[in-house]
Amino acid sequence: MFEAAELGHKIDKPTYKKEEPKLRQALLDAQYELKDNGKFPVVILISGVEGAGKGETVNLLSEWIDPRLIETHAFYPPSDEESERPPMWRFWRSLPPKGKIGILFGSWYTMPIVNRVNGATKTAELDQSIEQINRFEKMLTDEGVLLIKIWFHLSKDQQKKRLKSLQKDPKTAWRVSDYDWELFEKYDKFKKWSEHTLRESSTGEAPWLVVEGADPEYRALTVGNYLLQNIRNRLDRENIKRQANAAPLLAPIDGVQILDRLDMTQKLPKKKYERDLEHWQGRLNLLSREKKFKEHSVVTVFEGNDAAGKGGSIRRVTSALDARTYNIIPVAAPTQEELAQPYLWRFWRQLPRKGHVTILDRSWYGRVLVERVEGYCSEFDWMRAYSEINDFEEQMVYNGIVVVKFWLAISKEEQLRRFKEREKIGYKRFKITEEDWRNRDKWDKYVTAVSDMVERTSTSLAPWTLIEANDKYHARIKVLKTLANSIEAAL
Amino acid sequence: MFEAAELGHKIDKPTYKKEEPKLRQALLDAQYELKDNGKFPVVILISGVEGAGKGETVNLLSEWIDPRLIETHAFYPPSDEESERPPMWRFWRSLPPKGKIGILFGSWYTMPIVNRVNGATKTAELDQSIEQINRFEKMLTDEGVLLIKIWFHLSKDQQKKRLKSLQKDPKTAWRVSDYDWELFEKYDKFKKWSEHTLRESSTGEAPWLVVEGADPEYRALTVGNYLLQNIRNRLDRENIKRQANAAPLLAPIDGVQILDRLDMTQKLPKKKYERDLEHWQGRLNLLSREKKFKEHSVVTVFEGNDAAGKGGSIRRVTSALDARTYNIIPVAAPTQEELAQPYLWRFWRQLPRKGHVTILDRSWYGRVLVERVEGYCSEFDWMRAYSEINDFEEQMVYNGIVVVKFWLAISKEEQLRRFKEREKIGYKRFKITEEDWRNRDKWDKYVTAVSDMVERTSTSLAPWTLIEANDKYHARIKVLKTLANSIEAAL
Repeated sequence: MFEAAELGHKIDKPTYKKEEPKLRQALLDAQYELKDNGKFPVVILISGVEGAGKGETVNLLSEWIDPRLIETHAFYPPSDEESERPPMWRFWRSLPPKGKIGILFGSWYTMPIVNRVNGATKTAELDQSIEQINRFEKMLTDEGVLLIKIWFHLSKDQQKKRLKSLQKDPKTAWRVSDYDWELFEKYDKFKKWSEHTLRESSTGEAPWLVVEGADPEYRALTVGNYLLQNIRNRLDRENIKRQANAAPLLAPIDGVQILDRLDMTQKLPKKKYERDLEHWQGRLNLLSREKKFKEHSVVTVFEGNDAAGKGGSIRRVTSALDARTYNIIPVAAPTQEELAQPYLWRFWRQLPRKGHVTILDRSWYGRVLVERVEGYCSEFDWMRAYSEINDFEEQMVYNGIVVVKFWLAISKEEQLRRFKEREKIGYKRFKITEEDWRNRDKWDKYVTAVSDMVERTSTSLAPWTLIEANDKYHARIKVLKTLANSIEAAL
Repeated sequence: MFEAAELGHKIDKPTYKKEEPKLRQALLDAQYELKDNGKFPVVILISGVEGAGKGETVNLLSEWIDPRLIETHAFYPPSDEESERPPMWRFWRSLPPKGKIGILFGSWYTMPIVNRVNGATKTAELDQSIEQINRFEKMLTDEGVLLIKIWFHLSKDQQKKRLKSLQKDPKTAWRVSDYDWELFEKYDKFKKWSEHTLRESSTGEAPWLVVEGADPEYRALTVGNYLLQNIRNRLDRENIKRQANAAPLLAPIDGVQILDRLDMTQKLPKKKYERDLEHWQGRLNLLSREKKFKEHSVVTVFEGNDAAGKGGSIRRVTSALDARTYNIIPVAAPTQEELAQPYLWRFWRQLPRKGHVTILDRSWYGRVLVERVEGYCSEFDWMRAYSEINDFEEQMVYNGIVVVKFWLAISKEEQLRRFKEREKIGYKRFKITEEDWRNRDKWDKYVTAVSDMVERTSTSLAPWTLIEANDKYHARIKVLKTLANSIEAAL
């Protein structure tokens, strides 16, 4: 992949002087159209060999185009807030909103390559990382992100020359650290694993552009034109609605859905409930105070039919916890800032630090439930959501987060009874809205959506627990018990 | 202040059972009105003696009212991201948006009191902290925040009893740490300095409510009713537009404004400019790479007439810096999330970590410039902004942030020339809009606003530098030189 970037590409100064103003103007125009259009963000990954002009190119771009519409993010050793979350968290928090350009200096490729070069990982692990990256990038591009990946390359000779010349000039000597020379010693290894990584991660949606970094004029025009071409192409093309390749899953031919198998008659007498409540709340409380708990965090998702008792169950959980350690996230319509980001962004930003519990009252599953049923997103969008969600949860679990997901199920009759009851009791009135009645009309569609969801996202890492919630006592105890046992298993 | 909270207040269970559902319903109603109204946030500070039921009360509130509209924040030892910013940063990032209730468990009062009790500070320093807090809280309440401050108190005997009884019960023993007993040893000191602090910080806008914490029913009803009364009061009252007590500053009687004193004829020949540019960019670059720089950060504000060359000056600064270390914040209309917060919130969230430079293309000074001139905010609002801004900048400077503020001034004639030129050159066209022409019509009003701003916010900690910008070369060099010298002085 690097041969074409070792040809000694060069642009002479007069040509550059002629081309530069035209390119600059076209880039500015494109940038302003991007802003006005406001439909997609541009993410530029800047990677490659040290000394190949990454910094200069970013500086130049900032001079050419309107720096107010660019964000540059560089990645140092993670802060403690970052290291307490999954590794991708820091990149999620650096994504630019729609209409803006974000330059990521160093990226999700850095650590996988560095670790392989240093021998900290095996090839199989590198390939696993690449596979995860590919899935992540597919999600980004499916979400409409224009992802531009630029690799700055220098041949071994060029790099040596470059480092030496930087070192000689007192104005640039600071840029060359011992670490750069250490890296240079490993040039061949770096080249090998970089090439491997680039090859495996150059996809149709987000190919790599490898740029020879030796000649400033050549690399500047190359990067500028590539950026221009990509933004223009996206701005000019017709917005074709994408369609999922596969049809939605078949409902079971015999008509038996997973929810049908629940024994909705399960009941707990009040006396037993009170004893169990005390037991499991005590258990949960003790667990949350164990030393080991400080190395984990908990994300628990409450989904369920309207009026299934999510709120009541959540309160039985929270009253077992120290108010300082949990946060309840009610998931409603996204804000303006959230709408300008990929779908999962607003959940990434809510991930707890170690030792904390995040309770989601509704969640990212909205995409495959209400958004699917109501047609708020396209089939293409909700069909891909299952695997995106699985990837998301996998990252959480691998980072020591205990993920516990509840579906609180009630029967259609029980729901009706509760709706009517709620309309009568003063302080419960707020819980019942017109929307609840409308949702009820789509009961069957929700049953299908829930069955698909459970089938496709109940994984060994983050299984769904279905809660028979016609009896509130039974439901609450099962929630508490499941949560406590899941945390215990993780500790 | 604590006598009335040592009377052994008690509510009997039957009364509580009768009152609780009514209170709960009224609170829920108020909470929903607050949400629908969406005009102000509620911030509840929970402070006081250990064992006085702070946690239980917060848990109870979460049960009573809709937890989806509450955020609870507790404050542990600061994270590294927090400790690299001014101490108030962590509280700013925990403020609830309009329409929501935020419970701050521990608050800006904790450290000043603890430090005084431990002898780490003197009384004068405690009083300084209280003075700063009062100014901060005044700003919050002026911004429309409903600030409710609750202090949970126990007499010495009560606290001892309470800690012992918590310790005896295996379910609550965990709550009592050695640290709590250590604190208990210092009960009298704590009481003394807490009382001092409460007395000095109980203002008309945000008085303290001291609650006797011994009886669960009493403290629950007291806190609940106080909360209800406050929210209701704010919801029900007519929204009276507040007026500043003082009239705006007089323009100088002789008509001479500070901007008139600038020698706008200053010029730099191109040759000299190029030499100076290299010199000062080199200087800036070297400074930014000094070891000591990693313990500081830089916030630099660019304000100026339209077309005064802010963008060009910013680029001369950034091209001297490593793209990884700076961020340019273009200040335009606030987002939805920003509008739901006090005015300065969106600037607090942008404060850099150590070793970083934040460049603001326009800034918080918009409030006393465009917002004042265009009437986007009331006189009451911009009149108080000067001291709020001074407080903000003081906090930055005390935390090792180098604050450098530029006003780029051009003459009215020069502006006209540049507007016309911009309209001709393609890639500069985006820089000139209808709004620029409209602003130009208000030239004199801006002169007054700028003069007031400089007079009232040019402090020894964060002085304004006025840049004569009719000659771009002169302007850019003066910016670079001032910035480099300011950083050097700080290191």
